Amino acid sequence: MSPLSPDQIVQKMMDHDAFSQWLGIEVQHFGPGTCTIGMTVREEMVNGFFVAHGGITFSLADSAFAFASNSRGLHAVSIETSISHTRPVFPGDILEAKATELQNGKTIARYEVTVTCGKNVVALFKGTVFKKDTLWT
Amino acid sequence: MSPLSPDQIVQKMMDHDAFSQWLGIEVQHFGPGTCTIGMTVREEMVNGFFVAHGGITFSLADSAFAFASNSRGLHAVSIETSISHTRPVFPGDILEAKATELQNGKTIARYEVTVTCGKNVVALFKGTVFKKDTLWT
Amino acid sequence: MSPLSPDQIVQKMMDHDAFSQWLGIEVQHFGPGTCTIGMTVREEMVNGFFVAHGGITFSLADSAFAFASNSRGLHAVSIETSISHTRPVFPGDILEAKATELQNGKTIARYEVTVTCGKNVVALFKGTVFKKDTLWT
Amino acid sequence: MSPLSPDQIVQKMMDHDAFSQWLGIEVQHFGPGTCTIGMTVREEMVNGFFVAHGGITFSLADSAFAFASNSRGLHAVSIETSISHTRPVFPGDILEAKATELQNGKTIARYEVTVTCGKNVVALFKGTVFKKDTLWT
Repeated sequence: MSPLSPDQIVQKMMDHDAFSQWLGIEVQHFGPGTCTIGMTVREEMVNGFFVAHGGITFSLADSAFAFASNSRGLHAVSIETSISHTRPVFPGDILEAKATELQNGKTIARYEVTVTCGKNVVALFKGTVFKKDTLWT
Repeated sequence: MSPLSPDQIVQKMMDHDAFSQWLGIEVQHFGPGTCTIGMTVREEMVNGFFVAHGGITFSLADSAFAFASNSRGLHAVSIETSISHTRPVFPGDILEAKATELQNGKTIARYEVTVTCGKNVVALFKGTVFKKDTLWT
Repeated sequence: MSPLSPDQIVQKMMDHDAFSQWLGIEVQHFGPGTCTIGMTVREEMVNGFFVAHGGITFSLADSAFAFASNSRGLHAVSIETSISHTRPVFPGDILEAKATELQNGKTIARYEVTVTCGKNVVALFKGTVFKKDTLWT
Repeated sequence: MSPLSPDQIVQKMMDHDAFSQWLGIEVQHFGPGTCTIGMTVREEMVNGFFVAHGGITFSLADSAFAFASNSRGLHAVSIETSISHTRPVFPGDILEAKATELQNGKTIARYEVTVTCGKNVVALFKGTVFKKDTLWT
């Protein structure tokens, strides 16, 4: 099979990603090593403080990170991620996550993802992947 | 109102935590600054690689971290968390997350959460909270 | 005593910072919440691989982070820092560390520091501080 | 050349590690994937707060991490490290850093390093390495 293009890879990943679908993630933009996705926070996503559970913004950022890193063509596996939640997020909020490539090395690549709600940054995410030697086909 | 005990705090947090309920989280054990919770991975929790989305194990660990840090009596807010996914997790896997207190300072406290599936460690999580001056009542 | 200005704070910090002096750090630029500093790597700074010890680039980034976060006027204490070393650094290399403010909250502030050698990024640093209620005077 | 034993690797790394020597690091104990080293803080290691510069405890922990990860026999390169400084450290303090292996995968390995001063934990460090396919000889 021939290698997939970035849009085919992101489409294929999204098609099989049941949890990203549950989150209501929509892909807005992608290119080599970058990706922007969005979702709307629902009431079933809150924690005991009645704000979005930390895992919701993490999951959104983690999906953007996965799409961006795999869009380069090789299978990429998450090694380490970190997130800072900078503002509370509420049901009804429309979130956007933009992944940017910090480094695209031979075996290691690094991305940062900024999650925003309108003009406000709500979370800062950083992730590192290990790139396997197998292509998306 | 009088301050709540650790078990009352965890119960109150869990009662209002819609997302932890969606995840199927069950509290197994808690004490001052510690907490063990569990859940079973379902098919709707997988990503495009047909393994549990990174956000699932993060969310489980983040809940354990939130319960453990708030169980001390003061409202605690997450400042920074990081996670390493060390093994893939599949639908049907029964996960356990154990939060341990690394440091309980006046305004800052730190926890590590180890997520296991049977005898295997599947994720290593570390989190820092800022402790507000308001009590759980 | 009256509060110090950003340049007075950075000057006072640098004057008493014996280790930054040993590193040969020179302050190039600063402003509210930002700072750029530089240094030249020496042979006594290498590790067993004959490249700069990871602690050298960390220390440079950590100083930039400390200067930037304290320049806001309040005493700021490091809570958590992380660093990724993206390229090896050698004796004779001239390094520059630029700290940028990601968030300036009431009690918590976040900074990223990019360490470069010429056009190459050699390290990516992120740090969080807790702001005390005492002013630099 | 034949592969080196853990003690030969640590000895070889330490012999060529000019910065660890400047720090005054002494190797106290090592084994496969673990290492304990110590040092005494000197006045030239303080920052503008008259406490040990954050880079000093980081460097000590980073050396323990490097020795522990390389002692397994393969060349190991740091991918990502993080540190929390939990207590201030002063000139004259005798520090000990103990590296423990969290995971020893085929290409990725993870370590935590606890830095203590007497009975007090002064820093918590976590690091991830990428293992090359070249042996220490």
